[in-house]
Amino acid sequence: MLRSHTCGELNINNCNQEVVLCGWLQRSRDLGGMTFVDIRDRYGITQAVFNMETNSQLCLQARKLSREYVLQLKGVVRERENKNLKIPTGEIEIEVNEIKVLNPSKIPPFTIEDNTDGGDELRMKYRYLDIRRDRVKNNLLLRHKLSILVRNYMNDLGFIEIETPFLIRSTPEGARDFVVPSRMNPEQFYALPQSPQQFKQLLMVGGYDKYFQIVRCFRDEDLRADRQPEFTQIDCEMSFVEQEDVLNTFEAMVKHLFKEVKNLNFDSFPRISYEDAMKYYGSDKPDIRFDMKLTEITHLVQNCGFSVFDSAEAVIAISVKNSSEYTRKQLDELTEMVKKSPFNAKGLVYIKCNNDDSFKSSVDKFYNEEQLSNIAKSVNAKKGDLILIMAGEKERTQNAMGLLRLEMATRLNLRDNDKFSPLWVVDFPLLEWDEETFRFYAKHHPFTAPKPEDYHLLFKEPKKVRANAYDLVINGVEIGGGSIRIFDRKMQMDMFEALGLNEEEIIQQFGFILEAFEYGAPPHGGIAFGFDRLCSIFGGSESIRDFIAFPKNNNGRDTMTDAPQRLSQKQLEELNIRVIEKN
Amino acid sequence: MLRSHTCGELNINNCNQEVVLCGWLQRSRDLGGMTFVDIRDRYGITQAVFNMETNSQLCLQARKLSREYVLQLKGVVRERENKNLKIPTGEIEIEVNEIKVLNPSKIPPFTIEDNTDGGDELRMKYRYLDIRRDRVKNNLLLRHKLSILVRNYMNDLGFIEIETPFLIRSTPEGARDFVVPSRMNPEQFYALPQSPQQFKQLLMVGGYDKYFQIVRCFRDEDLRADRQPEFTQIDCEMSFVEQEDVLNTFEAMVKHLFKEVKNLNFDSFPRISYEDAMKYYGSDKPDIRFDMKLTEITHLVQNCGFSVFDSAEAVIAISVKNSSEYTRKQLDELTEMVKKSPFNAKGLVYIKCNNDDSFKSSVDKFYNEEQLSNIAKSVNAKKGDLILIMAGEKERTQNAMGLLRLEMATRLNLRDNDKFSPLWVVDFPLLEWDEETFRFYAKHHPFTAPKPEDYHLLFKEPKKVRANAYDLVINGVEIGGGSIRIFDRKMQMDMFEALGLNEEEIIQQFGFILEAFEYGAPPHGGIAFGFDRLCSIFGGSESIRDFIAFPKNNNGRDTMTDAPQRLSQKQLEELNIRVIEKN
Repeated sequence: MLRSHTCGELNINNCNQEVVLCGWLQRSRDLGGMTFVDIRDRYGITQAVFNMETNSQLCLQARKLSREYVLQLKGVVRERENKNLKIPTGEIEIEVNEIKVLNPSKIPPFTIEDNTDGGDELRMKYRYLDIRRDRVKNNLLLRHKLSILVRNYMNDLGFIEIETPFLIRSTPEGARDFVVPSRMNPEQFYALPQSPQQFKQLLMVGGYDKYFQIVRCFRDEDLRADRQPEFTQIDCEMSFVEQEDVLNTFEAMVKHLFKEVKNLNFDSFPRISYEDAMKYYGSDKPDIRFDMKLTEITHLVQNCGFSVFDSAEAVIAISVKNSSEYTRKQLDELTEMVKKSPFNAKGLVYIKCNNDDSFKSSVDKFYNEEQLSNIAKSVNAKKGDLILIMAGEKERTQNAMGLLRLEMATRLNLRDNDKFSPLWVVDFPLLEWDEETFRFYAKHHPFTAPKPEDYHLLFKEPKKVRANAYDLVINGVEIGGGSIRIFDRKMQMDMFEALGLNEEEIIQQFGFILEAFEYGAPPHGGIAFGFDRLCSIFGGSESIRDFIAFPKNNNGRDTMTDAPQRLSQKQLEELNIRVIEKN
Repeated sequence: MLRSHTCGELNINNCNQEVVLCGWLQRSRDLGGMTFVDIRDRYGITQAVFNMETNSQLCLQARKLSREYVLQLKGVVRERENKNLKIPTGEIEIEVNEIKVLNPSKIPPFTIEDNTDGGDELRMKYRYLDIRRDRVKNNLLLRHKLSILVRNYMNDLGFIEIETPFLIRSTPEGARDFVVPSRMNPEQFYALPQSPQQFKQLLMVGGYDKYFQIVRCFRDEDLRADRQPEFTQIDCEMSFVEQEDVLNTFEAMVKHLFKEVKNLNFDSFPRISYEDAMKYYGSDKPDIRFDMKLTEITHLVQNCGFSVFDSAEAVIAISVKNSSEYTRKQLDELTEMVKKSPFNAKGLVYIKCNNDDSFKSSVDKFYNEEQLSNIAKSVNAKKGDLILIMAGEKERTQNAMGLLRLEMATRLNLRDNDKFSPLWVVDFPLLEWDEETFRFYAKHHPFTAPKPEDYHLLFKEPKKVRANAYDLVINGVEIGGGSIRIFDRKMQMDMFEALGLNEEEIIQQFGFILEAFEYGAPPHGGIAFGFDRLCSIFGGSESIRDFIAFPKNNNGRDTMTDAPQRLSQKQLEELNIRVIEKN
């Protein structure tokens, strides 16, 4: 080893020891007679000291070093005069007697500090410098810690990690696949897995009983801030279980992570049905760190002459605490906001619950004080609160109110990153109707089982069929989702038919899994956690990118290596493909 | 849970307990008054018993069940009369009072037994049935165990697992890439990583100090029995180390695995230079479970009138123990064999060391008894041994003799799968010359550092430059390989130039890593283990396929799901590519 110790481990007990440290020059201070150099590695920072009086040559050498030089310093540990008790090495310094520059460094394009002066683009291009910063480093250390904790926890429960293939068959059902041309099978392509769903089910058919895998998945979708073309799942499946068993097993796992990483204990996670989540939070991933529930007030407001409410399927309200002082301008801003996508609402009605017990509303001419008071009662609004109301088609209004609820919570600082509020959302609908393609899609995926008591409705009233499907939500973020699976050939055929596939298509695309169900498929179910999101929640960040060593930008590019790239003609020929040039 | 216990855990202590078991019907025996049904899951097999006298209806129901039915059995644990002490559950049986068929099964296309009647192709098509067999199951359990052991061992040493991207930039240097067309970046492609080499080096530049990852890698090469298009590596890298540190760290890891999995202890692994490995074993991955070293006897046999030897660069011999009785026919077979690829030798000379101290050789007319005796002495051949000799160009003859050595060891049963002989091969040449493309290639990869003392020869005598590169070999299989890396821009430029790249090509292809070296790259080195091969060595098998849940065949196809497949026209259009139809 080129070093005897790391830059994070020396302390007062090492005094007078001869040591060799390696690391990066974090900063240096030249105080005339003395020069101080902080040397940094993954483990910490140690101060090195050079004395112009006792060793002028070495001190002059030290003064020439600049930021991010890679150094090897030999010297003796000494107790410091000015101690820094904030860091573990802060009581000592190294009296250096030899400097070796292992590698010089150009001046980095931004500072290697938590509050760096580098913008997002610059830091992505020099990601190998960006990840030197403590903030990113701690995120990646947390990610490693979580993965080790998950693996050992699952292993202790008898789950085994089994690697499933990355070069698989493309499945038209679901999101868009990334594909890989096969050179050995001309004109044919592999797909990269969107999840190991079918393989993990085949492992259950194979009798593996309890499977997990922390595994990369791929989805060729247009990207948003919290989406990456490649992402990591904690993928899990169990045999001979019912929904309750899956929930209990993985609730315990998540509690274990909170205990180990945050030293937090939780009671049983609350459970809410999809229907109630939409009703009370306007979202299937409610943030329950704060209350501010939605209340439907349709019955209270219709038939009073206000045509917007009268013609609406639903009128829904929230009460925003201590916000009755909102100005005209602020209210106009809110109204403008809800008219825009993604809210896409027609407008916003407000009722201010004034401190003098009066009300001031944008619909004063339709409702008297008593009526306003009744509305206030029904949404549990007190003096000083602001009631916000939207109306329209029910589901759409729920969604819009859900977003408004989050917006108001953000404005009131109710979304505390140090607070964690997990819950299960259960009883999802099996199918959802798509207006554009005019067909049903599987809400979770086509292998999810309908609730036995709803199965008979599959073709009669498909929208009413609920699934044994569940999501784990923390702080308004969907962290995991799963379901009890179909394991019966006929039920699986019915499901595909309900999705509008004909028999030929079903057999062509899913024949192998249908056949597998005929050779002793056990009842089974599972769950998959978004590992990037889990890390970001534990790390108190909104962006999953901060928890990925080498993420891609919103165009799916890695700006550091400049990928993707054009291929050579030879590569294309070997693969039997041609690129269609864009004009 | 649909069960109270697994099929592997009930024993004499559970007698008279009410239990519920779930599993697959392994076999049933109908003995007139009694019917026995063995029920199997991942954990074991439990016998269930049905009595025609006490419950004829249930017994008749049991008789209708056939192999691989998925059952739920409720009953009471009873002590068996005929105990089977070979299995943990062999002292008890379940007196069943309720059968539930969770899923029936068609008769499987082959038996779910260690010695199955199913051929390779059939078992691959029904891989979900094949993996039910104990043999495959135990392999996958071993694989899981090794991965958990590796991860915890590395974690304990302060290595952190960091996930690197799968959608990366294509690198022309090296093997052929699998590529992925980018929809968002038309006409451009990602590549799938052949290894995370450049990313792990950038993690070292990023200060991560100790990195590992168990990670899938991809190589689009023509396949052999022990190659798969996707394979798994234990990928490792360390900063501020020299070769000795890497060897010691990972030797200790491999010892830990042997101790935990096999309860085997090892002394220090032997080390041999590449030159000596070729000289004594005719291979850079010598199987040292047995001796039978190569001996060069050129000086002993030339100038005696045998033109084949006289004109040869090298004449090399091995002594095969107790094989002097080889018949003419057997020797002819050997001769035919070495003439074929991959030996590609011109012929084979033998000397039998007869038990009466005489010699019988195929070159009797050129060498007298004394000369033959001298040869025998030099190769340490005793009475009863058979000396085999090949001649020709040195490296080619070494390789051919190396293969012959393995062949003879196989014939003599010297390659014992329960014996483990690890060793390090070190001091590999940095470059190797390719006759076909008439240029040098990196023996390991282009980021491997030349030995400092050989660096000055890089352009003068490139073949003589040795690298700080090393392989871990176990039983003649290369399990891992690594090197100390270049971390200096100029040296890296020199290396690319030595590989025949011009400056423009270098900057275009590797500019980002060269630039990274200018911002404080630390000295670093690492190693990567072939995890599939490591598993197969520990499992005592030659084939890595047996240790992969869903492997591909030699055409890169998954015959179970029938991948790869043609894409729809819509998919191709979205990706801006066109398939060139083969005629």
